[in-house]
This record gives sequence, C-alpha cells and structure tokens, in this order.
Amino acid sequence: MDDAAPRSAAESRSNVVRLTLPTDANFMGNVFGGVILGEIDRVAYVTASRHARQNCVTASFDRVDFLEPVHVGQLLDFEGLLTYVGRSSMEVSVDVHSEELTGGNRHRVGHAYVTMVAVGSDGKPTRVPPLAQPTSEDQQRFREGRKRMEERARTRPPPTGAG
Amino acid sequence: MDDAAPRSAAESRSNVVRLTLPTDANFMGNVFGGVILGEIDRVAYVTASRHARQNCVTASFDRVDFLEPVHVGQLLDFEGLLTYVGRSSMEVSVDVHSEELTGGNRHRVGHAYVTMVAVGSDGKPTRVPPLAQPTSEDQQRFREGRKRMEERARTRPPPTGAG
Amino acid sequence: MDDAAPRSAAESRSNVVRLTLPTDANFMGNVFGGVILGEIDRVAYVTASRHARQNCVTASFDRVDFLEPVHVGQLLDFEGLLTYVGRSSMEVSVDVHSEELTGGNRHRVGHAYVTMVAVGSDGKPTRVPPLAQPTSEDQQRFREGRKRMEERARTRPPPTGAG
Amino acid sequence: MDDAAPRSAAESRSNVVRLTLPTDANFMGNVFGGVILGEIDRVAYVTASRHARQNCVTASFDRVDFLEPVHVGQLLDFEGLLTYVGRSSMEVSVDVHSEELTGGNRHRVGHAYVTMVAVGSDGKPTRVPPLAQPTSEDQQRFREGRKRMEERARTRPPPTGAG
Amino acid sequence: MDDAAPRSAAESRSNVVRLTLPTDANFMGNVFGGVILGEIDRVAYVTASRHARQNCVTASFDRVDFLEPVHVGQLLDFEGLLTYVGRSSMEVSVDVHSEELTGGNRHRVGHAYVTMVAVGSDGKPTRVPPLAQPTSEDQQRFREGRKRMEERARTRPPPTGAG
Amino acid sequence: MDDAAPRSAAESRSNVVRLTLPTDANFMGNVFGGVILGEIDRVAYVTASRHARQNCVTASFDRVDFLEPVHVGQLLDFEGLLTYVGRSSMEVSVDVHSEELTGGNRHRVGHAYVTMVAVGSDGKPTRVPPLAQPTSEDQQRFREGRKRMEERARTRPPPTGAG
Repeated sequence: MDDAAPRSAAESRSNVVRLTLPTDANFMGNVFGGVILGEIDRVAYVTASRHARQNCVTASFDRVDFLEPVHVGQLLDFEGLLTYVGRSSMEVSVDVHSEELTGGNRHRVGHAYVTMVAVGSDGKPTRVPPLAQPTSEDQQRFREGRKRMEERARTRPPPTGAG
Repeated sequence: MDDAAPRSAAESRSNVVRLTLPTDANFMGNVFGGVILGEIDRVAYVTASRHARQNCVTASFDRVDFLEPVHVGQLLDFEGLLTYVGRSSMEVSVDVHSEELTGGNRHRVGHAYVTMVAVGSDGKPTRVPPLAQPTSEDQQRFREGRKRMEERARTRPPPTGAG
Repeated sequence: MDDAAPRSAAESRSNVVRLTLPTDANFMGNVFGGVILGEIDRVAYVTASRHARQNCVTASFDRVDFLEPVHVGQLLDFEGLLTYVGRSSMEVSVDVHSEELTGGNRHRVGHAYVTMVAVGSDGKPTRVPPLAQPTSEDQQRFREGRKRMEERARTRPPPTGAG
Repeated sequence: MDDAAPRSAAESRSNVVRLTLPTDANFMGNVFGGVILGEIDRVAYVTASRHARQNCVTASFDRVDFLEPVHVGQLLDFEGLLTYVGRSSMEVSVDVHSEELTGGNRHRVGHAYVTMVAVGSDGKPTRVPPLAQPTSEDQQRFREGRKRMEERARTRPPPTGAG
Repeated sequence: MDDAAPRSAAESRSNVVRLTLPTDANFMGNVFGGVILGEIDRVAYVTASRHARQNCVTASFDRVDFLEPVHVGQLLDFEGLLTYVGRSSMEVSVDVHSEELTGGNRHRVGHAYVTMVAVGSDGKPTRVPPLAQPTSEDQQRFREGRKRMEERARTRPPPTGAG
Repeated sequence: MDDAAPRSAAESRSNVVRLTLPTDANFMGNVFGGVILGEIDRVAYVTASRHARQNCVTASFDRVDFLEPVHVGQLLDFEGLLTYVGRSSMEVSVDVHSEELTGGNRHRVGHAYVTMVAVGSDGKPTRVPPLAQPTSEDQQRFREGRKRMEERARTRPPPTGAG
C-alpha cells in the first residue's frame, strides 16, 4: 500500500465512548475539565496517527469552552475528525457529548481543534499523506481549517531555549 | 475567619512537581499533551479552590501551545497563580516547565490561562472573595486578566440545550 | 419519552477505540487478555445500559478465544451490539479488532457474547424495553441469540449461598 | 536447577487478595465483571509463568458465570491452580470468593478455566515442564483438564489473517 | 457469630502476589520503594480488618529497610500476619519477597511492622476481639509485639492541632 | 556545569500539592497511609535526583507516625528537603500537611526521613555532589542528619541472599 496516497477524513475518523468514574470528578461529582481534555487529546492522537501512519505529537489546543457540567456516572462520547492536513501538521476537530446512562439525554459539552504534527525518530516534522476531499463538506472544512492553521502559525510563540 | 475578606494571589499559589511515567507517553516516549493539560487543570482547580473555599468548576482553557517536546522520565513542574478574580469567576495562570532528572536542564514547555467558576451545591455560580493586590505586579496582572476575561465573555458560545 | 417502547440495536450500538499502554502488557509487550476482557465488559455495559436506561450487571461471559496476539502500542477497536433482549436479560455481541497505529493493518483479535441483566435498586432483575428488529439481519441475530440464551439458562450453575 | 524437571501444581499455586475500590464499580456500587476477569487473568498469568518460567500469553477463557453480585468495599480473593499441562499450553483453574470486610461472610462469586500458552521471543509456542501429580487429586484434575483441553482444540476458531 | 470472640492470627493472615508494572518503576527499571510501602499498607489493612471486622486506619509504620532492589517485571509476594492485638490497636507484620517470573529465584526484599487502629464512625478508637494464641509461636510473637507497642506508645509524637 | 560542585538544599527542594481522590481511601473515606507513603517516596526521589543528577533508589524509611486522619477530598502538601549528604547516600526530610479545600484549615499529618542512594547503571552506589551549607540552619540539619545516618548504618540488617 502506498503510504503517501491521499486518504479521506472518513478513513481516520475515531470514536470513543467512555464511562466517567469517581476518580474523574471532584468531591461534588463534577468531572474535571482536565479529564475531558486528556481524552480529547488521545482521540486526536488516534485520528492523526491513523492518517499519518507515523508517530504524532500535539502542537496546540485551541481555546476550549466547557458548555455544560458533566457529572460522574454519565457517558462521554468523543468523535475525532480530520479537517485540514498540511505538509506535516494536521487539524483534528473533536466533538464531545455527554449522555445520561439511565435517561438517554444527550448534550454537547465541548469541542476542540487540536493541531497534531507527524514527527520522525529524530523528532523532526515529517511529511504526511494529503487529505482526500471527496465531498463538498470535506472541501468546506478543509478551507476553514487552513484559515485557522494560518492564523495559528501567525500567532504561535517562538520555541523556547533552555530556561 | 471572614471568608469574604480579600486574599492575595500569594495565598493560593500552588506548585506541583510530577515525574512523567511510561503510561503518560506514546510508543516513542513523547508525553501526551493531554496528560499535561490534565495536570494544568488540577493545579488550576487547587489554586482557585484555595482562594474561593468553595467547589469550583472549569469554564474554559485558552489556547495552549506545546513549546517543547517532553520525554518520559523528565520532571514536570506546574505553578498556578491567580491573576484575576471577578464575582464568581477566576483566571488562573499556569506555567509548565520540564526538567531533566539527571541533567538539571529546565525548559518552559507550556502555559495556560484557565477560567474557573465557584459554584454552589445547586450548580449556580456563587460569589468569591476579592483578590487583594498588594504589589504593582499584582495590579498589572489583574488589569490584563480583566481584559482577557471581557474578551472571553464576548466570544463565549451560548450554553447548549439538550442535543 | 416512553422508556418501555421498543428500541433497535442501532440505537444502543457502542464503539470504543483504545490505545494500548505499557501497563496493559507483560514484560514482553503482549497485552494481557484480561485488559481486553475488561474493556469488552465496559462496552457491553454501555450498550446494555443505553438500551435498558437502568442499572445493569454482568451475568456471564461466553468462552472467549484470543485469536491474535496484541502488542503494546497497537489500537484496540471494540464494537458492542445488542443481539437478543429478553424480559430483563440482554445479550451483547462485542467484536474486537487490533490496528497498527503506523501501518494500518487491521486484525480481528477476539469476540465475546456478554449477558447483561437490568437490576433495580433492590438488586432484583427488572423489565427492559423489547428489541425492535427492523431488518431481517436484526431478526436473524435475535433468533440465534435466543437459542444461545436458552442454552445458557439450561447450563448455568445455581446461585451459591454463603460459602 | 533443571527448568524442564516436572513441577507440581502446589509449587505454582497463586493467591491474591484485593480490596475493591470505587473505580471498580458502576454508579450503583456493583463491581464490574470485567474487573474480576482482569484479575483472574493476572492470577492465571502468574500461576502459569511460575510453572513455565517463560513468557506466557492467554489463549482462551472458558465461559464465566458471575454467581453473586460483588459490592464495592468487599474483598475479592483469587486462587489460581494449574490443573493440566500439555506441551506448551496450560490450564489454570481460578476460583473467586468475595468477603465482607466488616462481617466476614464469604461467598463464591465466580470461577474460570484459563488456557495459557508459553511463547518464545519469536512469539511461537515453546515447551514447558511436565506437571508432577503426586496426589490422586492432582491426577483426577489432570484427566479432567485434558478432556476440556481436547474439547477446546476441537472447537477453537482458526487464527484470522489481516482483516 | 460473636464478633468479640478471640480469633487467631491464622484466621486473618493475608497473602497478595503482585506483578510489577512499568508505572511502578523509575526510568532505570527500579521499582519505587513507595509502591512497595503502598502495597504493604493495603495488606496490613486487609489483615487488620479481617480480625477487627470494623473500619481500620494506619497509625504508624516502623522503619523499613529495602534489602534488595526490585526490578520491573518481577513478582512481589506480600504476607500479612497479626502479631499483637491490644484494646483497639493491632500490630501487623508484613513480609515482602521478590521472585523472578522466568527464573524462580526468590529474595526477601523488605519487612514492616504496621500499627493499625480500629475506629468507629465517629473516628474514635473502638475495641477489637482479642488475639487467640493457640501455639507457642503465637504467644512468642505476641510478647515481642507487646514490647514494641509499648516502646511506640512511649516515643509517639503528640497529635498536632491546626497548624 | 560541574556536576560534582556542591549544591545547597534550596536547589533541590521539591514541593507537591495533591488532591486526594476516592481511590485513595477506604470505604469510610479515610485516606490510606500507604498512599501518603507512596507520595513521600516520590517527593524524596525527585529531591535526591535533583541533587545527584543520577538514578537514585530508596534505601530506607524511618518510622512514620500518622498524626491526624486525612479525609478524601482534602489536599495533601508534601515538601522534600535534603538534610544530609554522604558519599552516595542522601537523607531527605519530607513534611506532609493536609488542607481543607473549602475551609483552609492546615494540619501537619506526617513526616518521614527517607534515605536515598545514587546508583550507576551497574546498580552499584556512586558518588554524589557534596551538600553546600550556606546557612547555620543548613549546618545544624546536616549535623543531626549525619548522626541519624550513622545510627541507621549501625542497625541496618545485612543484605539477604537468595531466599
């Protein structure tokens, strides 16, 4: 198989359903935002790695708003979708919903754009396959993703040296 | 003690040193960004709770850039500091440094502004003590934090209903 | 919403993608069978709970064969699907595939039939909604599941008393 | 020491007592079946490895019935015993009891036959020492175990190729 | 059953075999002493609770020397035995051995005397059943345990107030 | 930088704030002593490693008394400070305080002297930098630490052979 052949977002789309546990929450039963961010990152990592077929690292998280409180015992449902692919960087859109196990109510509780970069064994960015865009929806997402990526590059702080 | 008396940022400042472990990293030994975000959230929670002396929840994370890769086995050092306090919301600035256990090199690897909100047992926002600002540095941070908070309020998506 | 109205298997179908970690494996990097069984149980629990909208407990696992070794660093992909629903018991079919993160190869590594029972707050079995069977495939799975369930009932050991 | 000399089941017998914790249970306090299966697998792995003195992997779990509910806070007591040893495969019988920490009541809650296989660094099955059978009870267990193993070999699904 | 009837050490003796995992060790594969102490405490808790049939808390750990390094992948075998029982306090002796999974070598790597106290729901010490001492070995251990307990009481620091 | 140049205790001082979670406690909400000892060990490891800049292992824990019960939901605050440094062994003093998240009350709940030893890749002790003692307080702590270290060496049990 040609690893550099374009692949569509549908091929790397990744879904995780996760039960929240007492260790995920504070003493009032509110699930920590950081638990949700940790899971978002893992879903983004899986999505990007399925596309790149190489090691990937997280370069940035755009701002994340927690729209609804999540209570321990609820389900969290994460869906990762590639929206933009550059030379070595990829934008993954991760949508998060909560769901009452015993009631079925479903709420959107958060969303994140995560930028992942494929890196070689020397830690340097490496080329990834292009993103095939078979549908007009794919193309629309790609154009918007590219705009966000350009804005990020413009405002990204420089790498730090030894501090 | 009067729980509503102003308290300074120095009183709630929180520090965590954490050893990274094999479960924190992918197969190439790169520590997951989500592990770092999870720890940032816990430090922000502790910092805000020490000030508010009430239950707090995470409202948002501003964009986070990962400035340097972190390798498993390194130390991570988190420092949380209150920069702005409103009626019920607080902005916590969290600084993250990595450190080679066997070499002492120290790098700044990330930073986040986390917005925390104090909530009562009914889940509604509740009032927190004001932030005392004994130094001009405190005052400067407060003014900048207020500006960011106003910008966030302006651009925050509306709460979702059942989805 | 009427909680007793029939619901189809498509409504409770549950998917989990999970990265295997060093703690999931022995010193040679083979992922423990028990880690896979633990995840199968969680997916079965989520699938059954989404249908029953009540608390569920695991009654039995049919024999599980591990068809292919799983190595740490691979992805595991679990899919839970309701195949049969009785008065209070449900049969969940869970399919497990492994996937090379960096190669895309996908293997079926195991499968389980898990019997879940809905229980009330007194721990006694309670009635669950019937399984709607809109397609002939659904109906075929249902008939086969009922046969297995009858066989299980016939061979299930009696509950033990205090031992 | 001669690693190929016969060893009795008494030499590899393994016992684990484990406190159940909040993360082991669902929101009603029922310990997940998968947590119990995970621990059964670890005990079987230890039992088989003590006999084989080589790396072992799980080949199959026979059907497991959960005979009594387990509540968070109870003790679980696992005992692994080798019942049959072939050229490279071993059958481990694992018995599970629950125990009230504050009442002393002890119940049998489950049992499993786990088939483990010793594998070399190439992942291929390797020879293990024979099972010494000093008592007539050992010999009885061995005969019954061999019958189950033959039945398993007869009904085991073929290994899958790339899926 | 009379909960206050004397019970022997044999009735509460507790055994745990545990596989060490990558997360238990530092970057050179040395298992952390704290992981071993954590497991010792859990075994002591189980042993004391089985005797007391009440909630117990740890009052002190006598000095612990780590006699041999433990490497990740080895088995750890813990055995807890009651040696002395007072009105509400109990001394548990915990012995720790390591074992090569693939070689069978067994080393004593540590030992601890842990003092546990039974407490009621108000957090105050409560009476526990006496320790039956059917053998002369039991009686010898009891006399030595009482001496250590008296020495501990003599040198224990006073409880602290708010600091 | 000269790795053998003296370094002061201030340079390796390490602080960890940690939220206690449901999995850290027994069914009555009392945080396990072993959880506290595990964290003490990690702080001692970090403190010693920052000084030695080499791999370190735990040689012993002096007796630890738990002065106050810790309840799940409280903060634990650990501070590690080097008090004495020999050729290859170091004494770390670790102080533990608890803190009510919602009340601010702070209690000293425990203290430990942990002896850490720097080891090379062959597992043999290796030389560490001397401890600079710029203040009279440092010098006082050093003299007392040396006395305790001499007492430990006098009473330490001999290493065990194969058991």
